[in-house]
Amino acid sequence: MTPSPSPIPQPPRVAFLGPSGTFTDMAARELFPRVAEFVQAPTIEGVFDAIRRGAAAYGVVPIENSTEGSITSAVDALIEGGLFIRRELVLEISHCLISMNAQLTQIQRVYSHPQALAQCRDWLAEHLATAELVPASSTAAAAQEALKDSHAAAIGSRLAAELSGLPVLCDGIQDLAENATRFALIALEDAPRTGDDKTTVAFAVRDSRGALRRVLEVLDEHGISLTRIESRPSRQKAWDYVFLADLAGHREEHHIAAALLVLGERCPMLRILGSYPRFR
Amino acid sequence: MTPSPSPIPQPPRVAFLGPSGTFTDMAARELFPRVAEFVQAPTIEGVFDAIRRGAAAYGVVPIENSTEGSITSAVDALIEGGLFIRRELVLEISHCLISMNAQLTQIQRVYSHPQALAQCRDWLAEHLATAELVPASSTAAAAQEALKDSHAAAIGSRLAAELSGLPVLCDGIQDLAENATRFALIALEDAPRTGDDKTTVAFAVRDSRGALRRVLEVLDEHGISLTRIESRPSRQKAWDYVFLADLAGHREEHHIAAALLVLGERCPMLRILGSYPRFR
Repeated sequence: MTPSPSPIPQPPRVAFLGPSGTFTDMAARELFPRVAEFVQAPTIEGVFDAIRRGAAAYGVVPIENSTEGSITSAVDALIEGGLFIRRELVLEISHCLISMNAQLTQIQRVYSHPQALAQCRDWLAEHLATAELVPASSTAAAAQEALKDSHAAAIGSRLAAELSGLPVLCDGIQDLAENATRFALIALEDAPRTGDDKTTVAFAVRDSRGALRRVLEVLDEHGISLTRIESRPSRQKAWDYVFLADLAGHREEHHIAAALLVLGERCPMLRILGSYPRFR
Repeated sequence: MTPSPSPIPQPPRVAFLGPSGTFTDMAARELFPRVAEFVQAPTIEGVFDAIRRGAAAYGVVPIENSTEGSITSAVDALIEGGLFIRRELVLEISHCLISMNAQLTQIQRVYSHPQALAQCRDWLAEHLATAELVPASSTAAAAQEALKDSHAAAIGSRLAAELSGLPVLCDGIQDLAENATRFALIALEDAPRTGDDKTTVAFAVRDSRGALRRVLEVLDEHGISLTRIESRPSRQKAWDYVFLADLAGHREEHHIAAALLVLGERCPMLRILGSYPRFR
């Protein structure tokens, strides 16, 4: 990890979680509005692999939704190590119910990605209580299923509706009006300091009473705000956890560097997953 | 919430996340080995609703897997409130690849519940790298899909294989040999004190530096071990979180009751989700 990134071939190759028409596709195009060569990957792990293999310089993956929480496979791939968050992007997510059937009462099946079904859980319980909820590998794939079945609908973006040619039956059906997803731009290196940055770290604590408290004390004593913390299974041992935390500040700032030095000595595992500009 | 449970009609009605042949079905039968009337619910929310409506006295839902983490819809339904954890059960989960096709190289699609696909993520990447991973609403539903397609396989329990009549192609394909799921028995009341109990609580913290640290300090000062902590979106406001924590001890024990009294005054939200015997 060096502070200044090495030159990236132009146009850069950008892997994203496909297929076309997904919210991640929209995020990738917003992150690279000018010329870029986009490569679809079928899974989040595939995006990480494309960068590791050198098939892409950057990757775009969803990491957290404000209603439904972490995208666990992205978080796990980050914890696994080797790649860094270089930028974040927050996109407002508005879900549409799309179907060739214009009658809500005739919808018997609703296809979508499990994340989208979860983000619309209350709406579905209220308006389509008896419909079967069928998971799909992406919102775009769900639209393809809805094309085949006159008693089915899909949940997806307006872009997915347009690409599939299906009409939008209801718009803005997510449970919370303010529904947004954080996307991460992944690369071999993180970003230089801008003055308004965040740092994502993963750490493990010893299995003792107060162990997590002592980590939080170190951060607090160094004047560091924790903007998010979550736990994930370590995938090393059953019922063993790793914490993922977002800290306000860049790893090169003195107070962050000092706190991470202390934590590096105390925690059985500490990994910096990247410093990057805070999204505004 | 009263310490002694009210009488339950015999045989009790037990709602579980169906269909038959899922791991939750196995958990429900282990929790009620004698006479009980089992009711299938299509979703985790459906299990909670069955108890709220009085259609069942108990519910059985998965809450956490040791490899893949929380079952978020169960955690969210608990946080929503009104029902309590009365008992926990940990089941070892061994996944099988089941298919009518005996040639691994001919498998083009693998169906399963997203949790099971995630628990076998590394195995699939190594042995079926080019196969399409297709999410299904349950491992049992996945087996039904595999019945229709000679180039497909499903991931599920040995019971799902038996019920579908499909042969087991590979056994124990989960990424971690020690792979287990915690199930919760949900009811209108939690459990009386046994001397070796756990208490699950949900709480929110004020949006200030060190807020989570101060909660952990209260627990630590009262000699309480935190055996697990995780965060979930509050579903009230975007990027606002609720924490879920497991504490060693029963809510009626003096040190737990005293700590919860302090936290009840300091936290904008504190909810006891149940005290119940620790699984041994």
